[in-house]
Amino acid sequence: MRLEALRQAVCDANRRLVNERLVSLTWGNLSGIDRAAGLVAIKPSGVAYDQLTPADIVLVDLEGNVIEDGLRPSSDTPTHVRLYRAFDHIDGITHTHSPKATAFAQARRAIPCLGTTHADHFATAVPVTRPLTADEVDEAYEANTGRVIVERFEGDASLDAQTTPGVLVAGHAPFAWGRDPSDSVDNAAALEACAAMALDTFGLCGGPAEVAELEPYVLDKHHRRKHGPAAYYGQGSG
Amino acid sequence: MRLEALRQAVCDANRRLVNERLVSLTWGNLSGIDRAAGLVAIKPSGVAYDQLTPADIVLVDLEGNVIEDGLRPSSDTPTHVRLYRAFDHIDGITHTHSPKATAFAQARRAIPCLGTTHADHFATAVPVTRPLTADEVDEAYEANTGRVIVERFEGDASLDAQTTPGVLVAGHAPFAWGRDPSDSVDNAAALEACAAMALDTFGLCGGPAEVAELEPYVLDKHHRRKHGPAAYYGQGSG
Amino acid sequence: MRLEALRQAVCDANRRLVNERLVSLTWGNLSGIDRAAGLVAIKPSGVAYDQLTPADIVLVDLEGNVIEDGLRPSSDTPTHVRLYRAFDHIDGITHTHSPKATAFAQARRAIPCLGTTHADHFATAVPVTRPLTADEVDEAYEANTGRVIVERFEGDASLDAQTTPGVLVAGHAPFAWGRDPSDSVDNAAALEACAAMALDTFGLCGGPAEVAELEPYVLDKHHRRKHGPAAYYGQGSG
Amino acid sequence: MRLEALRQAVCDANRRLVNERLVSLTWGNLSGIDRAAGLVAIKPSGVAYDQLTPADIVLVDLEGNVIEDGLRPSSDTPTHVRLYRAFDHIDGITHTHSPKATAFAQARRAIPCLGTTHADHFATAVPVTRPLTADEVDEAYEANTGRVIVERFEGDASLDAQTTPGVLVAGHAPFAWGRDPSDSVDNAAALEACAAMALDTFGLCGGPAEVAELEPYVLDKHHRRKHGPAAYYGQGSG
Repeated sequence: MRLEALRQAVCDANRRLVNERLVSLTWGNLSGIDRAAGLVAIKPSGVAYDQLTPADIVLVDLEGNVIEDGLRPSSDTPTHVRLYRAFDHIDGITHTHSPKATAFAQARRAIPCLGTTHADHFATAVPVTRPLTADEVDEAYEANTGRVIVERFEGDASLDAQTTPGVLVAGHAPFAWGRDPSDSVDNAAALEACAAMALDTFGLCGGPAEVAELEPYVLDKHHRRKHGPAAYYGQGSG
Repeated sequence: MRLEALRQAVCDANRRLVNERLVSLTWGNLSGIDRAAGLVAIKPSGVAYDQLTPADIVLVDLEGNVIEDGLRPSSDTPTHVRLYRAFDHIDGITHTHSPKATAFAQARRAIPCLGTTHADHFATAVPVTRPLTADEVDEAYEANTGRVIVERFEGDASLDAQTTPGVLVAGHAPFAWGRDPSDSVDNAAALEACAAMALDTFGLCGGPAEVAELEPYVLDKHHRRKHGPAAYYGQGSG
Repeated sequence: MRLEALRQAVCDANRRLVNERLVSLTWGNLSGIDRAAGLVAIKPSGVAYDQLTPADIVLVDLEGNVIEDGLRPSSDTPTHVRLYRAFDHIDGITHTHSPKATAFAQARRAIPCLGTTHADHFATAVPVTRPLTADEVDEAYEANTGRVIVERFEGDASLDAQTTPGVLVAGHAPFAWGRDPSDSVDNAAALEACAAMALDTFGLCGGPAEVAELEPYVLDKHHRRKHGPAAYYGQGSG
Repeated sequence: MRLEALRQAVCDANRRLVNERLVSLTWGNLSGIDRAAGLVAIKPSGVAYDQLTPADIVLVDLEGNVIEDGLRPSSDTPTHVRLYRAFDHIDGITHTHSPKATAFAQARRAIPCLGTTHADHFATAVPVTRPLTADEVDEAYEANTGRVIVERFEGDASLDAQTTPGVLVAGHAPFAWGRDPSDSVDNAAALEACAAMALDTFGLCGGPAEVAELEPYVLDKHHRRKHGPAAYYGQGSG
């Protein structure tokens, strides 16, 4: 029963990717986790979003093994399970090739916090990973994609995956996560919107070096309006 | 009865924000005022636009106090009521994070009047506020956001909130207003469109310093076609 | 009867402006002409496109006088009739503030022919008018807007309004025209698309001065594929 | 019967061009081939996509001759048949003037592989043809357009039309192809998306010369995930 609700939530959130204009063709995948059961529900590989039903959603364990007959899971499944194992407070992950965030990933440049839109979702710049080595690509490409993401967060004391719920994989595209599948879509949408606004802000200022980052006290205030014990945004259902 | 009509108008105008592509997720809020009753009707905090009904709209007084049980009002309510108190001719306010206008706010750069599209809605450049101080953010962030907007207009003899119905808050995003809730959406849409066109005009000319502003006599003419006693645009219902 | 068909065509073509994403709010107007009757059918001023019916379309004579009771015609009517009087082979006119073409108008820069998309619709660069003088704005702004357009074409032997069916008014926005109301929408859409592509081509090449214009023999070939006695595009209904 | 299925597939794929926002007006055409029958099914010239039915699709032989009475085929038919004759593994061709890819064609610049989105569809940069000569335009413009495409691939040992399923025609626009009509639309959509992302990546890096191309071992890996004997993307129906 609980797994059926998870499959429904993962199916609905995958369909939101189209409505929020975050994916084209089949470029993207989204998963959710049942922490108690230790099971991840993820989009099947290469299936069109508008044909997706809850029954198509694939269940895998935290090693990425499919636990029942059915469709093949997203080829990025090893990345998802690697993130769920490392970041124990996240219960949904969204991967897209949304165009403006992907341009930053291709430029191998972090998205700086230039305004309150960014601060509402991310407590820092959205970081970019190092490129994978040829060996890492050859051995276990998707698992190692997860590994460089985790390495980026664990190697930087200023980063916490809970308050910075997204990352750019160098030469690839963004991953975002959240407290449930739908929240990870919100963060993926915010990441794309902030990338678009940062690009135009760079253009207005004459390049990235000329741009003023948001005052730290405004960044903190906006993040705390929405997150943590003193949050006062929304209807307080959380 | 009159308040029900206001709630309906505020609900309808909030939904227009989505149709005009001015908001993503729940980034934006819109209010209207009944000047005789001294009551402001405003979007509830964090509620999705497509689920909004007139009954969800929250009534507050001009100090921002909620006057009946129900949903929590937008967290930006103190900004709205501060503007209604200072600008007594405006009866609707729209706040969005529309992307091109927000890029100007992040670049802390006013939107100059480069053409008649701008002149039809704004009699001057759309100004940008100063940043809030750390103390202002800490004490009463949203009320002080309203305060720096009012300060921007009151401290500049060339600005009149009635003929320049919008502003950019530095590092944040635009606010626009109008003679009723729907008119404030029109001005928010115009502000976004003019920001987009100004960005591209800068690109074509080789930067903001190279751009010619609209001749003042054309600006005046276009503004007077639509506004004031000699207006001859539209069907004359105003 | 014939006038009813014209009103229907003008109403339909005005609604196409929204579908082709060429207008926001009420920024745009479209007309058609019955040459035999000497009457122009034009959008009423300030009416929303989605509420427009054929009965709302206003009939005026070639001096711009309304010939029956009803709505007030577009405030740009004097521009339309000026163009119909000067260019006797055009039977539909579209005026928009479409964003990329308007950026060129604001930059007061012609749209050069950089590719076959442009050549399919325009036999030359899309020219830009001179700015109106203060006196011209003061005396008869809209009629003089038509006047500077006509002046631009009559003063330049390389331009023919039939083969270059559009223009940018400096500091204002584009006008396009065609053999009927719907054809003028096609040319307005082409003008916007070519402006968008030219902007990006400039960006790729490092600025307008670095861009190669389309070879004249390709321009001629593409234009002749679609227009004139040797045209072989389409189903030959023309 | 088999030809009816082809006509249906070609009609459906032409309509997808609108849904994927790859065409405006009637700027684009798509064909499919029945290799056994030696017949190509192609869009009729100048017909609106939303009015297209399978019965409208025109059948031509590999010389471009119409084989039954009906509508006139796309004026670009000689380009399509030239490509089918040269590239014997492709069974669908899409031609669009999609805006970002067309900007690259107008700038006469190849789209470099900057990320995995590109690598998923194209094993190399998307190349650009040489311009046609005046004689080539004059003699047989559309057939010679096919000829310069084929020349571009045959004259470059690094290019294989099967693994690089698209090209930019200098001063014109993109052509893409695939294993069936719908697959050619996927590749046309990928080409447009990669062009858009490359443009923004250039902007972030300060110009094309400053951009890092994707590591060759990542390019190979991503291409092999989706194509060839070791592919593991999708549900393995191929």
